[in-house]
Amino acid sequence: MLNFNVLLFDDFETLDAFGPVEVIGKLPKHYKLGYYSIGGGIVTSSQNVRVETLPYKNAGDDSVLLIPGGMGTRGLVDDISFIGEVRTAAQNAKYVLTVCTGAALLAKTGLLKNRRATTNKIAFDWVVSVDNSVNWIKRARWNNDGKFYTASGVSAGIDMTLGFISDIDGYQFAENTAKYIEYVWNKDKDNDPFTD
Amino acid sequence: MLNFNVLLFDDFETLDAFGPVEVIGKLPKHYKLGYYSIGGGIVTSSQNVRVETLPYKNAGDDSVLLIPGGMGTRGLVDDISFIGEVRTAAQNAKYVLTVCTGAALLAKTGLLKNRRATTNKIAFDWVVSVDNSVNWIKRARWNNDGKFYTASGVSAGIDMTLGFISDIDGYQFAENTAKYIEYVWNKDKDNDPFTD
Repeated sequence: MLNFNVLLFDDFETLDAFGPVEVIGKLPKHYKLGYYSIGGGIVTSSQNVRVETLPYKNAGDDSVLLIPGGMGTRGLVDDISFIGEVRTAAQNAKYVLTVCTGAALLAKTGLLKNRRATTNKIAFDWVVSVDNSVNWIKRARWNNDGKFYTASGVSAGIDMTLGFISDIDGYQFAENTAKYIEYVWNKDKDNDPFTD
Repeated sequence: MLNFNVLLFDDFETLDAFGPVEVIGKLPKHYKLGYYSIGGGIVTSSQNVRVETLPYKNAGDDSVLLIPGGMGTRGLVDDISFIGEVRTAAQNAKYVLTVCTGAALLAKTGLLKNRRATTNKIAFDWVVSVDNSVNWIKRARWNNDGKFYTASGVSAGIDMTLGFISDIDGYQFAENTAKYIEYVWNKDKDNDPFTD
């Protein structure tokens, strides 16, 4: 049983967080979901969803860390204190998953240096500018390198999380989960229809 | 500009609500998103997401009503007071969208009588048992009949909402939104890979 710690911040992109959450929620014997922000309290998404969070210091170890993207990342990459907290959380986590521009936050910690990673296609150039020592792969639905999984834009987070489940828990768990939530899983992580 | 009123309740299915929300959030000049429950306050999804809501009596008219599904619907179909509130909200709405077993709540109001509708495939028999005077269509990604749009399980809500945008705002808005959120839209509402 791993803790699946969702790290939220103001102006996160709603589906970046709750797509993966929907997938993970179907494996309650494997993962325990928790919703956090650095300080705790109500966090508001870009779509005005107000979510109650606990302070990240309360999050369990032996964890998967999920970092969504969204407009909030634009300011947060320059928030030294926030990036320091993300770095500690990512170092302590067994696995780290990012969706969309969540990869920019992880890149800013330095932990993606020389690693393969991907991100949203519309914001691609901006994310690359945050840290060009990362081996950014443009054509990818999702990617993984060691303990780091990075997804393309928004909906790709669902595909990546199913891919993560397949890697960690076994293909049949991923396939069953996709069926249960009636999701047409884009299984090939290298097939990215949104690059061009 | 229409109000897009999301009606939440305890044990709603997270993606049933936040898939459509992600789509609608990309058209801020067309729709104003709001999150409600009958009494207001914090509502907790089946995946333990705690969302702050306003009382539904505060919701704006000239609206689209979104009703998600989830395990919470199993008890709520027998809650006469709740169903009465849903009936009033649905009658006042310009359009009503349901996802998954949210269709059971709408069916219980009597407003779907003799209308075509669909729902989740795993829970199909239960939903039919709630009101068999509805013309339940099993093989459908989503469906519409008059002002009522009903989606199949969980992820089908994203496809339906793009289909709704296409019908109401025009195809190009739906196509652009799908691209922006990097979603592989299942555009054919009659193509349902999860029936068999």
